[in-house]
Amino acid sequence: MDSQQRTDAPPTPNLIFEMLQAHQRTAALKAAIDLDLFRAIGDRPADVASIAQACSASPRGIRILCDFLVINGVLGKEGESYRHTPTSATFLDPRSPASLASIAQFLTNSAMREQYQNLAEIVRTGRTAMPGDGTVEPENPIWVQFAETMAPMMAPLAAPLGAVVLEGHAGPMRVLDIAAGHGLFGIEIAKQNPQAHVTGLDWAPVLRVAIENARKAGVQDRYDMLPGSAFEVNFGGPYDAVLLTNFLHHFDTATCVGLLKKVRGALKPGGRAATLEFVPNEDRVSPPMPAAFAMTMLTSTPAGDAYTLRELSAMYTEAGFSGIAAHPIPMSPHTIVMGNA
Amino acid sequence: MDSQQRTDAPPTPNLIFEMLQAHQRTAALKAAIDLDLFRAIGDRPADVASIAQACSASPRGIRILCDFLVINGVLGKEGESYRHTPTSATFLDPRSPASLASIAQFLTNSAMREQYQNLAEIVRTGRTAMPGDGTVEPENPIWVQFAETMAPMMAPLAAPLGAVVLEGHAGPMRVLDIAAGHGLFGIEIAKQNPQAHVTGLDWAPVLRVAIENARKAGVQDRYDMLPGSAFEVNFGGPYDAVLLTNFLHHFDTATCVGLLKKVRGALKPGGRAATLEFVPNEDRVSPPMPAAFAMTMLTSTPAGDAYTLRELSAMYTEAGFSGIAAHPIPMSPHTIVMGNA
Repeated sequence: MDSQQRTDAPPTPNLIFEMLQAHQRTAALKAAIDLDLFRAIGDRPADVASIAQACSASPRGIRILCDFLVINGVLGKEGESYRHTPTSATFLDPRSPASLASIAQFLTNSAMREQYQNLAEIVRTGRTAMPGDGTVEPENPIWVQFAETMAPMMAPLAAPLGAVVLEGHAGPMRVLDIAAGHGLFGIEIAKQNPQAHVTGLDWAPVLRVAIENARKAGVQDRYDMLPGSAFEVNFGGPYDAVLLTNFLHHFDTATCVGLLKKVRGALKPGGRAATLEFVPNEDRVSPPMPAAFAMTMLTSTPAGDAYTLRELSAMYTEAGFSGIAAHPIPMSPHTIVMGNA
Repeated sequence: MDSQQRTDAPPTPNLIFEMLQAHQRTAALKAAIDLDLFRAIGDRPADVASIAQACSASPRGIRILCDFLVINGVLGKEGESYRHTPTSATFLDPRSPASLASIAQFLTNSAMREQYQNLAEIVRTGRTAMPGDGTVEPENPIWVQFAETMAPMMAPLAAPLGAVVLEGHAGPMRVLDIAAGHGLFGIEIAKQNPQAHVTGLDWAPVLRVAIENARKAGVQDRYDMLPGSAFEVNFGGPYDAVLLTNFLHHFDTATCVGLLKKVRGALKPGGRAATLEFVPNEDRVSPPMPAAFAMTMLTSTPAGDAYTLRELSAMYTEAGFSGIAAHPIPMSPHTIVMGNA
């Protein structure tokens, strides 16, 4: 996915063929997860017959699926046996604490996938073809699924985000977690600072996932819920910090600026707002993952985007923030952008 | 897609995320072709406004789609302008004689794509979930679409195949082209040898595409049509050569052997049968394109496969052929396998 490399490469029809078949890769990984294949592979190399039995599936289907997964780097093959790769053992085996298997449910959910069946029409109109405002429609149940399934992808980001937001800050503080979802980011603040009090804001059905996670983390006594729309509820406060994770990208610039003004109004002087975003470079085509995220916003929202640092900084500035700084999270496509009230 | 490289790489969650989003790559290329975007890019770098106007599309949609295509190597970007890459200029611009744009219609047709929406179930049962025998159901109209749209992908293979089959053979000869489709392979034989007489065998509606191509090539006087099923019609003959292009992979081994026996019965002594196939290495996971083709056979047929050279040789041998040899076509994922009657 190195665009420069590909741009300068000699012409090849294989790239066209490969792109037109790329949907098979998504389907294959989803099928393997649905069949619990990465558990069946287990600790030792396994042959087609034993995997087929463990997955209650046909030998022909398992053999072709496993070979396809090997071609795509998420299984290994030795002779007639299949084994985990480091990536599949860590991120796909359901017994791994870092397993990401559940994110397949959200990323391939039918409401999101269906949008791609007529992408040309979405490009023509310039907005999601979902009913209403798509994924940002009030109370869209998709966010319950997000909260329930995407936590494993977000969990590794929580500790870096907590460290950046707290910057060693101890003592009593109040934190508002807007679009809390699974709640992991606010919960992490509460874990890193035993005197932090966190308020999670999201749709009520989503907050049930967050409070359950707060309970599991043992911080439920310092976790309050503020159900509703970030654009409509009274934030309360004042807060020492406000988290805006995976949120601004759903909206157009004016909406983001309006929300940031409201956030600033709820912060103590010198308090900080921290957004977690996919932030492409100013060329908008690198790095691949943050840049490609704009496609998800095109298909699922009326006007969202993967904003560049310049654009995010301009929003913060217009909303009255200063000291705006970007903190890319190592080994991840995400960046924290912070501003001071 | 180098499986060894990926297998030994350190674990990365990005590969999981990328696979689960890979379907976007197929949709993006299909949308760009449907919008005639690669014509709009034209000979000079073009900005969002001019492309949007040419495609009757929204600036937001065009900007995000074009950036996505740049990330994937099928457009270039300089400042705010987009330009062709060598690959898109050669294989996606509809004005290029080598344009492959039409293959998107076949490769992403809804009957094929729908199979991937529940791939787990196909893996369980071990066969296509299409009605009847899937793409090998008699008179399946999908083969008219194949004949009409996939010719540009097959055209570059015709000259090498013709050379291998003829091996300099001049003078009168009769050739049977089984599953003729677009007819390009048999037509190429007629072009390379002005005394060759070709019989194209396929479903009648498909042969209408082949005879039209024979007319365009000026060889229609030496092109006969034999409509029907390769398993049921009398081949006639005897022939000097029989072509079996993109055909055996749809069927199980016993069916292939039966057909090869029938082919051998229609050949003159010493006549040759030539198959054009995706032939993976014996490990079945390399090279990526031929090996991954087994997935298409899993989802679209009851028992087809991407057969290895050992398997194809065994079929030829069981059917009574000798002198079996493989001829990989340079710069292509295809291999010609020939046997002598």
